[in-house]
Amino acid sequence: MLRRYVEDFGAGGINPTPNPKIIREMPAAATLDSDGGHGLVIGPLAMNMAIERAKIYGIGTITANNGRHFGAAAYHAAMAIDHGMIGVSMTTGGMQVLPVDGSKPMFGLNPISVAVPTNSEAPFIFDASMSSVAGNKIALAKRLGVDVAAGWISDADGVPILKEGPVPDKYFMLPTGGSRENGAHKGASMGMWVEIMCGLLGATGAGPNREGGASHHFIAYNVEAFTDLENFKNDMDIYMNAVKNTPPIPGKERVVYAGLPEHEEEIERRKNGIPYHPEVIDWFRGITGELGISWRLTND
Amino acid sequence: MLRRYVEDFGAGGINPTPNPKIIREMPAAATLDSDGGHGLVIGPLAMNMAIERAKIYGIGTITANNGRHFGAAAYHAAMAIDHGMIGVSMTTGGMQVLPVDGSKPMFGLNPISVAVPTNSEAPFIFDASMSSVAGNKIALAKRLGVDVAAGWISDADGVPILKEGPVPDKYFMLPTGGSRENGAHKGASMGMWVEIMCGLLGATGAGPNREGGASHHFIAYNVEAFTDLENFKNDMDIYMNAVKNTPPIPGKERVVYAGLPEHEEEIERRKNGIPYHPEVIDWFRGITGELGISWRLTND
Repeated sequence: MLRRYVEDFGAGGINPTPNPKIIREMPAAATLDSDGGHGLVIGPLAMNMAIERAKIYGIGTITANNGRHFGAAAYHAAMAIDHGMIGVSMTTGGMQVLPVDGSKPMFGLNPISVAVPTNSEAPFIFDASMSSVAGNKIALAKRLGVDVAAGWISDADGVPILKEGPVPDKYFMLPTGGSRENGAHKGASMGMWVEIMCGLLGATGAGPNREGGASHHFIAYNVEAFTDLENFKNDMDIYMNAVKNTPPIPGKERVVYAGLPEHEEEIERRKNGIPYHPEVIDWFRGITGELGISWRLTND
Repeated sequence: MLRRYVEDFGAGGINPTPNPKIIREMPAAATLDSDGGHGLVIGPLAMNMAIERAKIYGIGTITANNGRHFGAAAYHAAMAIDHGMIGVSMTTGGMQVLPVDGSKPMFGLNPISVAVPTNSEAPFIFDASMSSVAGNKIALAKRLGVDVAAGWISDADGVPILKEGPVPDKYFMLPTGGSRENGAHKGASMGMWVEIMCGLLGATGAGPNREGGASHHFIAYNVEAFTDLENFKNDMDIYMNAVKNTPPIPGKERVVYAGLPEHEEEIERRKNGIPYHPEVIDWFRGITGELGISWRLTND
């Protein structure tokens, strides 16, 4: 994504010095104008606004309109964890997903993230698009010429492709579930919910009538408003422990919950570094030189 | 459900005269002890508490523990609509759903409902379990001896049944999506989210460690905190209109959104009545006589 961000900043698509402003509010809820700022700038700002409100009122929520790419939804939601809160974030992604039985996209690759604090277990951090799969999975399969699974995409007419096969030249994304039988109407409804909470609460349109770039939505729940935080985190440990110790079905090694593999990967990477393709490192050296940005390898 | 409710009241499983109490709160958020009251008693009470908080703070949220069957999640969420608010409700259903690759249930038939006001179009009212399908669909198929779809249930060992077939004697429910390829990890994560927001914020355990009956969670969003309500409702009309006018794929008559078919059915039933099986009417006459409850047909 960094490449795309650098290009977008260069082309003026992202405002590098945004002046975000609250344009409407009540004590625990507000709409923020992102002023074209990047999601990784506006997201933390908005999430902190939600957290500050939740400290006082028990819950806080922000919708941010006129934004750009979100970065990663889980990054923003997980900010709540350090404050003993449950974080929720969502954003309007690319307008590529068909409603059930429809031939034109009516909502985007809209991810929802939920982050919940634990004590000693890995925190529960869910982050997934309400489309069948992330859009870049299809783009990658197309580039590599490999088949994609049944229920991931439609053909050019919008007809769901319900068996494994190559990615056609023109295609649309299907909702989570793929077919109605497997819950595509649920994926589609959750995708529309994201359009509403982000685009319509932000008064910048939804679906095919979106205006003004991406919109985001945030909630911070103060656990202490509902129950004792330490007890809650211990209860989360008990629950996450039960899930990860579910006896697996034959042929499967183990059961995981959202956030567990990522947590394990983070520990590994903090110890041994992040594996990058040499081509990425070359690009990074090149672009930082070109833009006059100095940097150093901290493990040198 | 009415039969089950009557039996449960008779057996002392539901408290007919609950004394619900707020046991912890901050201005916009609280935990309510349902005192064993029925969901159709506690749900409206809790949703109204959330709505009252949202009038002042912009958003309000309640978790209700120690409850019983929810009734219909959409009924509670839709209460927000008359107040110019977006309603969300969820509850912990029967503990029957497997995590991906797991052989033991780790969350319930947990429905989430979202209700959003419109102006002239049918309101958006979503209500669906985070399991593959509603649990009673499988029970019904088993009773009638008909096949169920691929990805709805597992066998007795927890192995997903990924082709159409009869319901075995012992089975478990799969998450929304059915298989991991079609998003079962998303359905499972949303199902666990419901366990957390209801059971753990209510301090009565989650998944296999649930205690004290069903728990519920409610949110009311005051649209006016974010944007002008009339503009929002008009924007919702534009969006819902776009969705229902999506050109359908070949062989399909039309595209619908959550709440549209139900809205049409409600208009029809208010005009022509609700079709009941004679056996249901007989039961109703019998049980009301037995319990000494008087009633009359309002259209007589």
